[in-house]
Amino acid sequence: MRIALIFLLASIFGAKAAAQSPQQEPINVMPMPANVQVGSGGLAIDGAFSVELEGAKDARLDRGAARFIANISRETGIPLSAAVAVHRGGEARLSRDVQKMVKKESRETGTAIRADIVPVGIATLTVYIQQAAKPVPELGEDEGYTLDVTPSRATLTATNTLGALHGLETFLQLVQSTPAGFAAPAVHIEDKPRFPWRGLMIDVSRHFIPIDVIKRNVDAMAAVKLNVLHLHLSDDQGFRVESKEFPKLQEMGSDGNYFTQAEIRDLVEYAADRGIRIVPEFDMPGHATSWFTGYPELSSGPGPYSIARTWGVFDAAMDPTREETYKFLERFIGEMSELFPDRFFHMGGDEVNGKQWDANPKIQAFMRAHGFKNNEALQQYFTDRVQKIVARRRKLTVGWDEILVPGMSKDIVIQSWRGQASLAEAAKQGYRGLLSSGYYLDSMAPAAQYYAVEPTSGDAASLSGDEKSRILGGEACAWAEFLTPENIDSRLWPRTAAIAERFWSPAETQDAEGMYRRLASVSWRLEWLRVTHKSSYVAMLGRMAGTDDVAALRVLGDAVRPVDLGTRQRTARAAGVPATSTMPLNRLVDAAPPESEAANDFTRAVNALAAANFKDAALEAQIRLQLTSWRDNDALLQPILARSALLNELAPVSQALGSLGAAGLQALDYLDKGEKAPDAWKTEALGMIDQAKKPQADLFIVVAPAVEMLVNASIGAAPPAAQAPAKP
Amino acid sequence: MRIALIFLLASIFGAKAAAQSPQQEPINVMPMPANVQVGSGGLAIDGAFSVELEGAKDARLDRGAARFIANISRETGIPLSAAVAVHRGGEARLSRDVQKMVKKESRETGTAIRADIVPVGIATLTVYIQQAAKPVPELGEDEGYTLDVTPSRATLTATNTLGALHGLETFLQLVQSTPAGFAAPAVHIEDKPRFPWRGLMIDVSRHFIPIDVIKRNVDAMAAVKLNVLHLHLSDDQGFRVESKEFPKLQEMGSDGNYFTQAEIRDLVEYAADRGIRIVPEFDMPGHATSWFTGYPELSSGPGPYSIARTWGVFDAAMDPTREETYKFLERFIGEMSELFPDRFFHMGGDEVNGKQWDANPKIQAFMRAHGFKNNEALQQYFTDRVQKIVARRRKLTVGWDEILVPGMSKDIVIQSWRGQASLAEAAKQGYRGLLSSGYYLDSMAPAAQYYAVEPTSGDAASLSGDEKSRILGGEACAWAEFLTPENIDSRLWPRTAAIAERFWSPAETQDAEGMYRRLASVSWRLEWLRVTHKSSYVAMLGRMAGTDDVAALRVLGDAVRPVDLGTRQRTARAAGVPATSTMPLNRLVDAAPPESEAANDFTRAVNALAAANFKDAALEAQIRLQLTSWRDNDALLQPILARSALLNELAPVSQALGSLGAAGLQALDYLDKGEKAPDAWKTEALGMIDQAKKPQADLFIVVAPAVEMLVNASIGAAPPAAQAPAKP
Repeated sequence: MRIALIFLLASIFGAKAAAQSPQQEPINVMPMPANVQVGSGGLAIDGAFSVELEGAKDARLDRGAARFIANISRETGIPLSAAVAVHRGGEARLSRDVQKMVKKESRETGTAIRADIVPVGIATLTVYIQQAAKPVPELGEDEGYTLDVTPSRATLTATNTLGALHGLETFLQLVQSTPAGFAAPAVHIEDKPRFPWRGLMIDVSRHFIPIDVIKRNVDAMAAVKLNVLHLHLSDDQGFRVESKEFPKLQEMGSDGNYFTQAEIRDLVEYAADRGIRIVPEFDMPGHATSWFTGYPELSSGPGPYSIARTWGVFDAAMDPTREETYKFLERFIGEMSELFPDRFFHMGGDEVNGKQWDANPKIQAFMRAHGFKNNEALQQYFTDRVQKIVARRRKLTVGWDEILVPGMSKDIVIQSWRGQASLAEAAKQGYRGLLSSGYYLDSMAPAAQYYAVEPTSGDAASLSGDEKSRILGGEACAWAEFLTPENIDSRLWPRTAAIAERFWSPAETQDAEGMYRRLASVSWRLEWLRVTHKSSYVAMLGRMAGTDDVAALRVLGDAVRPVDLGTRQRTARAAGVPATSTMPLNRLVDAAPPESEAANDFTRAVNALAAANFKDAALEAQIRLQLTSWRDNDALLQPILARSALLNELAPVSQALGSLGAAGLQALDYLDKGEKAPDAWKTEALGMIDQAKKPQADLFIVVAPAVEMLVNASIGAAPPAAQAPAKP
Repeated sequence: MRIALIFLLASIFGAKAAAQSPQQEPINVMPMPANVQVGSGGLAIDGAFSVELEGAKDARLDRGAARFIANISRETGIPLSAAVAVHRGGEARLSRDVQKMVKKESRETGTAIRADIVPVGIATLTVYIQQAAKPVPELGEDEGYTLDVTPSRATLTATNTLGALHGLETFLQLVQSTPAGFAAPAVHIEDKPRFPWRGLMIDVSRHFIPIDVIKRNVDAMAAVKLNVLHLHLSDDQGFRVESKEFPKLQEMGSDGNYFTQAEIRDLVEYAADRGIRIVPEFDMPGHATSWFTGYPELSSGPGPYSIARTWGVFDAAMDPTREETYKFLERFIGEMSELFPDRFFHMGGDEVNGKQWDANPKIQAFMRAHGFKNNEALQQYFTDRVQKIVARRRKLTVGWDEILVPGMSKDIVIQSWRGQASLAEAAKQGYRGLLSSGYYLDSMAPAAQYYAVEPTSGDAASLSGDEKSRILGGEACAWAEFLTPENIDSRLWPRTAAIAERFWSPAETQDAEGMYRRLASVSWRLEWLRVTHKSSYVAMLGRMAGTDDVAALRVLGDAVRPVDLGTRQRTARAAGVPATSTMPLNRLVDAAPPESEAANDFTRAVNALAAANFKDAALEAQIRLQLTSWRDNDALLQPILARSALLNELAPVSQALGSLGAAGLQALDYLDKGEKAPDAWKTEALGMIDQAKKPQADLFIVVAPAVEMLVNASIGAAPPAAQAPAKP
């Protein structure tokens, strides 16, 4: 006989959770709108819910309304019929786009929604736009909107389609389950973004990310009002777009894993429908090995080349001295400029080590002939040539910090991985810039850390208004060394939503605790948009355990986080098994979320207990229950860990978590008794904690600092605040 | 501050679970193969895993092999490259199909699989078929295969493609996580099905089920070796296929929710690729209201008609007396015969109440003129005419019990919803038949109950060999009154896998406990095929609770099951709110699985404790923990239930579960003390249990009988075995 039970602990936990559940918040919208006035009561959402579109015509808004209805229907489980009506110029009319879109959504999702003509003025939600947005979204378009929800109806007005789409996302987040049924709280919102460039970069080169995965993440981006998807489309490890001009790029440079031009066109339209620009990046002159597999003549070395299977800075670089290189790029950029309609074209430009240039006598001769003193000068020559090619296509060049050298065209936009200082310096010189330093998701930092990164802080804080306006915003960056279609969502979400709020909401929106409350809500809602950041974690635990009974494994998974990218690579190299792009990514380090809600909750609780001078019995009881579960989990988990090669490495991690649980309990015992812990125990416990804080199996036990705080308190040491993601 | 913790209970539970985990079973294949010899050791599955195809060429097998590789890669998380090779006639060759399929799987899933030529004889798994299967799968094709797995390699041989596809599914199920990595255990399997017709009927009329949902369920069917998908395509509530001959069928009869012909062709090919036949059903002459919305002249009444929004037996029926009816059907069946290539065509034929016929003077005159004594005779005339139309298309007619009357063509196949007796009677008369009685999934019965239903039992047991061979197999039936794309998977799976085993495995395969062990394993694996029977339950709980913190709600959900379809309809009618096809299906009754593993485990434990004369301390401790969790859950859950209109109705159910937990604990206390429970308590407890056994909120508390058993034991009553899904 087999019994495995999961259940919620002791009533006190549930009562607290219930009392402070997200529903109690007046408004759980993320990013937090610029201005919110909460009214009383709410607007019921039932089977009669309908949307009326008024004002200017834009097929994108029609489709957006149909999608919005389908999303409400999916999230509430309420079939919505006769839900989208279009009345423009006083005349009831049903656009073919609405009909088509509604029918498509209805048939594909099985949601019973229907487009129909309903009498003017009876719709639950009326959407009015003054004008259509640009066919392809452009930097700086008005994205503001006003949303007014009363108990009887809702009105959404915007200058153009983009604002209306944002407003619909806000409304969707407002819908919640109440004792009287689904409803949106009465509220008046006036909202607009702080920065016009709110981006997410996804590296699809180091690991290919299929189009469906990209699309569901575009939906997630739209949900948090991000408006730029920057695709890092080529690197040493893969060339990911079909070129018809130079087909060997994808044929020899991608292992067959690339986006076709039809897929790109579809994606561009899909993103534009959601108010999102697609900025393509083709990294050059370095990070270009995959180009050289098919076209070795582009490179500065002798070749031949094959797709890189490891990562780092490689020697291979384009030859900036041959006119053929620019002829190639002229044709290639021409082709890609057609395919990607956005006004910005990203040429990369980062991390050229110059070794091939140094070793090539012809290049050295060219440099001497042109009076180039160093490789930076040669790269500047290259950048300048490429920028002119891009400009001839009436596009603007974006590049990483390295492309900014004196004399570059003021048209270029700098994406800074180096920090606010280099961004401020660029702004002073008249260049526009984007911040990505501090937003690297592979650093596996908690949401609060990214949230605290401010594009206009540091050196940028002292810029003049004009200079400051050159800081367009920023981009979260998802480098794909350890990303797969299976785990990318959990590396992107929900943390990227915190960055999205930083880019959208007023600078004063700083309270991390409030952010975490909204984040929990939006994170849950993202799964309704088919994002798999939560479900995939559980599925991957199941794979490791060989069963879906993963409760014990999850206790461990929820107490750890993956080490950052660099640490993981160094550890692998030190162990003599360097990471490669073909190795399985199916360990706990690949599955565990970068930030655990359970661990955050524990850390908050310990901080709160310390703040209460360890005199809160109810809180202590909760903390004891959590510590007990960790202490006892090890015995449950070890036999499971022994059964699977994927789990063997976790034995010491589980043991360490068990020891932390035991030490925390012991510390509380001493605190309760009011006696100082004995020195021998103190030495042992602190030694154990020091050990537990070191990464094992590429995992950090993130609850260790909070346990350390308990132990320190029990030995009378001044308790430093445990490393919490936010203040309690 | 908020803390919510989920964890696995006390170490004894985990240890037991670990000791009896699925991995410990030598072979977890479902359906259980006809012959299995387990060897020692296992075949490692790693990044070098490859498949070699030998023997006859069949593009379907090529695609099947690519799909198989992609599935292994997805389930293990191991990138597989150079994995499919084709060597036929001694020559290494890579079929275009394999290349295309592998590339498609690779690009869509992001799985790094690649087709490549590898030297002959080094593949991990060699697949040999003597001949290709028929282009469209046919009834009675050889489906057997032999699978031999040794620690060094595996060989799969089959007469044709169908057997090989089954063998690949078997192999996939053999792959498991071991301490040495992923591996398939050494095993020799000789396998073939018991019945040639192993079907699943899905009603897509009462609620439309989109093509993607159908497809993922086709994958699930293939995983458990079912070979017929019977689509109930028309009924009073919807006509679900595009007809180009009679477009008003779908235009006016479907709310826009229908399969296009392109989708059907794609589905037929998709299913054929998996060895699955698609049998279309167009129900006539009754259950046809949706036809009449566009073509009222087909009916026997005056019309007009609109799509039915409720369920039951309607009066509307085709007019069997007009030649125009047959002209219509001649064209319509001609069109559908082309679209659905299967040799069988299902004409329904059930539940004609004859009221329209009685009320139509012309029909009455026709009956008198032809000497038809009753409506059955008139229906026979209709059936006979339709059967001849179908036969002219060189197809065979299938129908429900009602079509079988003396004198019908021996070609027809009877699908029996009435039972084995009517099936046996048909077989004696020379008709072939299928059993569906006892396999109605809407009865919400446990897997063991379906498992015990034997097509050749009862009256069928005494049939001669020839007669018995006319019983072709059976079909599980999924009627869609309360199905949506969201919950259909959980109504189909895993229970249908038990029925699949009944149809495939030898008649002697009867042990329900073994079945449940295999079922747990296959159920988990089905989620890797994108079936959502487990994940959707959790998502729906989240919708009800307005958060993904659903632990307390799940404790309740895991202790209940939905009432059967008829009870639910009667309850709704009695409450004055008859169920309709447009009402939301978002309550716990729509989400809770028909059978809960947790509840089964508890019932087994109580049975085992009774068998041990209530003298197993460890077992009792486990039971107490479960009872405690139910008792305490109510206090946790009530505030959550109060927050949501979707949850209000569950307050008494949660309270009842709490009372059951408390009563069970009290009973154990009495048993432990060896004293008989007092009469007053007995009366109260049994009264409470009687109440708790009645459905509330359309839910049965399935753990009530096991608690009743504890209470009865504590008062010295003879303990009848609790209603367990299987003997402990």
